[in-house]
Amino acid sequence: MSAVTCGITVSLDGFVAGPNQSLENPFGEGVDGRLHRWMFEQPEVNAVEIDALSSAGAFIMGRNMFGPGRGAWDETWQGWWGDNPPYHAPVFVLTHHPRTSLTMHGGTTFTFVTDGVESALAQARAAAGGENVCIVGGAATINQCLAAGLIDELRLHIVPVTLGAGERLFEGVDDLTLEPLDARSTELVTHMKYRVIR
Amino acid sequence: MSAVTCGITVSLDGFVAGPNQSLENPFGEGVDGRLHRWMFEQPEVNAVEIDALSSAGAFIMGRNMFGPGRGAWDETWQGWWGDNPPYHAPVFVLTHHPRTSLTMHGGTTFTFVTDGVESALAQARAAAGGENVCIVGGAATINQCLAAGLIDELRLHIVPVTLGAGERLFEGVDDLTLEPLDARSTELVTHMKYRVIR
Repeated sequence: MSAVTCGITVSLDGFVAGPNQSLENPFGEGVDGRLHRWMFEQPEVNAVEIDALSSAGAFIMGRNMFGPGRGAWDETWQGWWGDNPPYHAPVFVLTHHPRTSLTMHGGTTFTFVTDGVESALAQARAAAGGENVCIVGGAATINQCLAAGLIDELRLHIVPVTLGAGERLFEGVDDLTLEPLDARSTELVTHMKYRVIR
Repeated sequence: MSAVTCGITVSLDGFVAGPNQSLENPFGEGVDGRLHRWMFEQPEVNAVEIDALSSAGAFIMGRNMFGPGRGAWDETWQGWWGDNPPYHAPVFVLTHHPRTSLTMHGGTTFTFVTDGVESALAQARAAAGGENVCIVGGAATINQCLAAGLIDELRLHIVPVTLGAGERLFEGVDDLTLEPLDARSTELVTHMKYRVIR
């Protein structure tokens, strides 16, 4: 069976975003791009890991990653990524608000799933056609999946800054055991790959 | 001038010890040796990093690392390490309770410093004779030193388990920036080395 993977950028003190995420500050206050400089400023030296972020047959993301705010989105909201999002595959978005699927350019579709992560995973597996399913975030969705034992491979991109506050990875995920598979540092980030041990 | 280093073992979710540390559970409840298996079960493959933990001209530790409890220690308490502690150099212990220095076997001395970490650092630098000074823990002492900008090199030994609670590294240390120098994984731990950028 295909694997369920997860890749996420995290500060050294464990935050995937700062506090008070909004349309103006999608990664939270005080972050100012510091978490994702490694992708945008040094794409060549981090090419393998950047490719891995978007290489799956289907993706799952939380509502907090698809758009800002706590309620239903305006029907015109189509995500942060413009007409041609970087996924190029079916993306299943967890939400409490039913919505018609979106078909974007480049092969990305957004399907809104209102009956939970297990349902999203079943739909993503079916859509992935034997390829991996990737959980892309945010922290709440990843933590929920880790706690439920749904993730096989975890890739952390650890950025050498501390934020002090925000959305914390592993919150509520106690007693997890993993196996380190690989680690390498570039100037702006350390890439770590783990197998999750059930 | 010699460098100030710090090496600490930490869970993947950022804890250096579990909650409720005591004489019976020096690393806190629920840890059960999981944080330090890499040293005791696989000393050969982690030899370089184990050597680095005790290679300094002098050491500084917090009161919580020297002994259990919150108050003054019984005068018979001489640390966790027996007659011949692994430091083999002067160790300066931060405490609020004055106490006569201890001379142990193998070159380790414990000197109790009651006037703060800057004083301990000055004494340690003088005692180190040009060699590095190493901050050995616990979390509160390391966090205090990081926040005060006293540490030049930080070595993290990241153990692939989550604890969910305990003594958290980087608590109160926001807005720190580091440079990754090296990273390597063995079966039970990932070793990461950083230079702290002032």
